[in-house]
Amino acid sequence: LAATGRARGPGTDHEDLVSVTAAARVDARRLWLRHEAMARHGATAAGGVNRQALSVQEAQAWQLLIGWGRELGLMPATDAVGNLFLRWPGRDPLAAPVLTGSHLDSQPTGGRFDGVYGVLAGLEAVQALQEAAHVPARPIDIVAWMNEEGARFAPRMMGSSVFSGARGLQEVLAVTDADGVAVAEALADHAAAFADLPCWPLQRPVHAYLEAHIEQGPLLEREGLSVGIVTGIQGKRTFSVTVAGQEAHAGTTPSSQRQDALLAAVRIISGLVAWCHDPQDLVRFTVGRLDVLPNAPSVVPASVRFSIDLRHPDSQRLCHLGDGILAVCEAQAGPCRVTVTELSNAQSLEFPASIRQLLSACANDLQISHMDILSAAGHDARYLHEVCPTGMIFVPCKGGVSHNEAESATASDLAAGARVLTQALVALTR
Amino acid sequence: LAATGRARGPGTDHEDLVSVTAAARVDARRLWLRHEAMARHGATAAGGVNRQALSVQEAQAWQLLIGWGRELGLMPATDAVGNLFLRWPGRDPLAAPVLTGSHLDSQPTGGRFDGVYGVLAGLEAVQALQEAAHVPARPIDIVAWMNEEGARFAPRMMGSSVFSGARGLQEVLAVTDADGVAVAEALADHAAAFADLPCWPLQRPVHAYLEAHIEQGPLLEREGLSVGIVTGIQGKRTFSVTVAGQEAHAGTTPSSQRQDALLAAVRIISGLVAWCHDPQDLVRFTVGRLDVLPNAPSVVPASVRFSIDLRHPDSQRLCHLGDGILAVCEAQAGPCRVTVTELSNAQSLEFPASIRQLLSACANDLQISHMDILSAAGHDARYLHEVCPTGMIFVPCKGGVSHNEAESATASDLAAGARVLTQALVALTR
Repeated sequence: LAATGRARGPGTDHEDLVSVTAAARVDARRLWLRHEAMARHGATAAGGVNRQALSVQEAQAWQLLIGWGRELGLMPATDAVGNLFLRWPGRDPLAAPVLTGSHLDSQPTGGRFDGVYGVLAGLEAVQALQEAAHVPARPIDIVAWMNEEGARFAPRMMGSSVFSGARGLQEVLAVTDADGVAVAEALADHAAAFADLPCWPLQRPVHAYLEAHIEQGPLLEREGLSVGIVTGIQGKRTFSVTVAGQEAHAGTTPSSQRQDALLAAVRIISGLVAWCHDPQDLVRFTVGRLDVLPNAPSVVPASVRFSIDLRHPDSQRLCHLGDGILAVCEAQAGPCRVTVTELSNAQSLEFPASIRQLLSACANDLQISHMDILSAAGHDARYLHEVCPTGMIFVPCKGGVSHNEAESATASDLAAGARVLTQALVALTR
Repeated sequence: LAATGRARGPGTDHEDLVSVTAAARVDARRLWLRHEAMARHGATAAGGVNRQALSVQEAQAWQLLIGWGRELGLMPATDAVGNLFLRWPGRDPLAAPVLTGSHLDSQPTGGRFDGVYGVLAGLEAVQALQEAAHVPARPIDIVAWMNEEGARFAPRMMGSSVFSGARGLQEVLAVTDADGVAVAEALADHAAAFADLPCWPLQRPVHAYLEAHIEQGPLLEREGLSVGIVTGIQGKRTFSVTVAGQEAHAGTTPSSQRQDALLAAVRIISGLVAWCHDPQDLVRFTVGRLDVLPNAPSVVPASVRFSIDLRHPDSQRLCHLGDGILAVCEAQAGPCRVTVTELSNAQSLEFPASIRQLLSACANDLQISHMDILSAAGHDARYLHEVCPTGMIFVPCKGGVSHNEAESATASDLAAGARVLTQALVALTR
C-alpha cells in the first residue's frame, strides 16, 4: 500500500513522468464547464443549487455523470444505500479499488461546488490519467455518496456511514423526510430509474479514499494558496439545553418570585462562554438556535430551549469541555430546572501521515503552494477514514462562504486541487 | 363633586340607608350567571374566551348586554370609536354622567372575567340601586370600551384613549389587523349591525369613572382579601433592541473573528439585569420575546431582536432606568451593532385620594376587608384618569392568572367588588 510508505510523491522515474504529465492534462476549462452543466440540475434563481438527496434533480445529475463516465469507458454501479460509483477497472479488476469523490446532493439553498467538486475532480483526474496513458494497477471508483448534506433526510452522510458499516442500512431506510417519505421509498423510486446499474455490496474492501472539496472556511483564501492538505476533521459535540421556568405577568410578578427561563438561559450561556474560554482560540462554542416560550413581550418566559455546537481539534479537550456543560448549566439555573441532552459526539480525527505526506509531496512536485489545514466541517471522509487510508484536498472558496447560493470558487483553484488528486492517484494505483 | 370631598362613604343618614341597602341587593348568583352567559360568546374548547375587538363574537356580547340593559330601562348608545354605553338617566339627564365599566373584548386565548367583570359589575350595581329605589341625581353610564386588549388591533385601549382625547380618531381608524382589515372598516360593519343606536360625541364631560376588574396578580389572594382599592397604575416603558452581528460557520470561524449577535445579546441582557437590580424588588424588568436569525444550530447568529418591558411605580425612577438602557446596550455590544427603539412610555399614575378614600370608606361601611393595591397592568382607567376623578376596584383571580383560558374568580369575590361599586355610585350620584 503506497499510502503507508515513505513520505513521497511518485515512485520510479517512469511513473514520475506519467503522473506529472497526467496532472498537466487536467483541463481547467473542461472541469469548470462540467460544474456549470451540473449546476443546471436544481438551479435556483439566485445562482445556487437546490438538489437534495434522492430528488429528481439528483437523478438528473446522476444521468449526466454516468453519461460523462461512459464516454471514458467507466462502468456505473450503485449499492443498497444509493451511492453511485463509476469504475475504471485498471489492470486488476479484482483488486481493492481506490475511491475518490464526494457527493452530488446540496442544501436547499446550496452552492455549485460543495460536494460536486469532489466528484468532478475525480472524473477530471481519471480523464487526465487516460490522456496520459496511465493504466492503474487497481480499479479507481469515482463515488457520489448518498445524502451527505442531511438536508432532506437526517442524519447526514448516510451513504458513506452505511457503506463503511458505521450505521445500519435498516436504520437509515426508516428515516423519513418532512413530507413523511421514507428513505426506503425514495430509494426504491430512484433505483427504478437506474434499474440497469449493478448493485454492489456494502462494506467491500477499499484500498484508499481521497476526497477533494472546497474549504468552506476563509483560511486558504487569506493565505493566497490554492491547495490545503487536510490534516484531519475537527471533533464536534452537539447538545440541546432546555430551561424550564414559569410563565408570569411581566407587570405583576416581583423578580424575587419569578422563575424566568430566559434570564436563567442568559446566565447559563454566560457561564458556558467562560467555561469554553480559550486564549489559543481553538474552541468553537456556538449557540446558534434559541427559542423562547411563549415569546410575548409582556410575559415572563416559561421555557427556553437552545442548541450548543462545540468543536475542538483535540478530542481530549473536546471531551473535557463537553463533559463540563451540565455542571455549568446546573450551577447557573437559579430557580429554573435545566436539562441537557447530548445529540451527537464525533471525535476529532487525524488522517494518516502517509496520505497527508503523499498529498503534500504531490503538490510539491507540481509546484503548487499549499498548507496543512484542519477541516472544521464534517465530510464523508470521516467514515471512510474508519475503513481505509483516507485523505482530503481542499481548495479555497470565496470569503469562506458555503451552504449558500453565493458559494464561489475559481477555475484555476479547482484545477490545482484536481492536479494534486491526479498525481496522488498515480501513486496509489501504480 | 363628592369624589373630592372628605374621605367618607355615604352622606346623610337616608343615603347611608339607601346605599347599604342597595349594596345588599347585589345578587352574587345573578352576577355569576351573567358571566356564564357572556362567556358563551367566543367560548373556547379549553373553557376560555376568544372575543376580539369588533368581532362577530363581540357584537353578540353587545346584543346580550343591550338586552339586559333594556330590561332595566337603560338606553344603549355608541360613539365614533365604537364604545358602548347603557344610560340610566337619573334625575338630571343633562348632568355629566358617572361612568363605570371596562371592556368586552378578550385576548385570543383569554379568560371569562378580564374586562367582562367591570361591565357586569356596573350592570349589577345599577340593578341593585334600582331595587333599592335609589334615584341618581345624574346619569350613570355603563360602558364597554372598544379594543382594550389590543389583540386584534394595536395599540390597546383604543376606545378609552380616543374618548378621552389622548389619541386621535383618524389615527385609530387607519390601524389594520393581521388580515389587513382597518379599524374603520370593522367599525363600519359593526355599526351597521347597531344602526338604531344613537352616536354620542367623543370627549363629552364625565363626572367620575369607576372600573372594577380582576387583579391579574397574586396579592389579594395571598392576603385572603376580596377587594383591593387601587392606588394607581404602574408606569411602563417598552423597548425593542436589535443586535446586528454577522452570520458565520460554527465550525470554521474563530471566536476572535466572530460578530456573534446572540452572545452580544446575552452580555447586554446581563448588563441590563445589573442596571435594573433593585433590593426593594419594585423594578419589573422583563425580556419576554427574543428572536434569533437565522436560528440554526451550526450557524453563528447574524442578528437578535428582543423586547424590554420595564415597569416601576415611581415615574422618576422609571424614567431614570429607561433612559439608561441605550448606554448599557452599547457598552456590552462588543463587535456587534445595537439599536434601541422605545415603543411606549406610560408614566406611573396615582388615582386621586378622594376616590380612593371614598372606595375605602364604602368597603369599611360594608365590612368588606380590603387593602390598597397598585395596578401593575394597564387599564382604560389610565385614560379616564386624565379627564375626570377616577378609581378602580380589584377582586382576586385564582393564582393571579390572567390573559389565560384558565382565568378564574369566585362568585363571592365578584359580588364583594360589585357591592363596593354600588355603595360608591350612591355617593357619586347623590
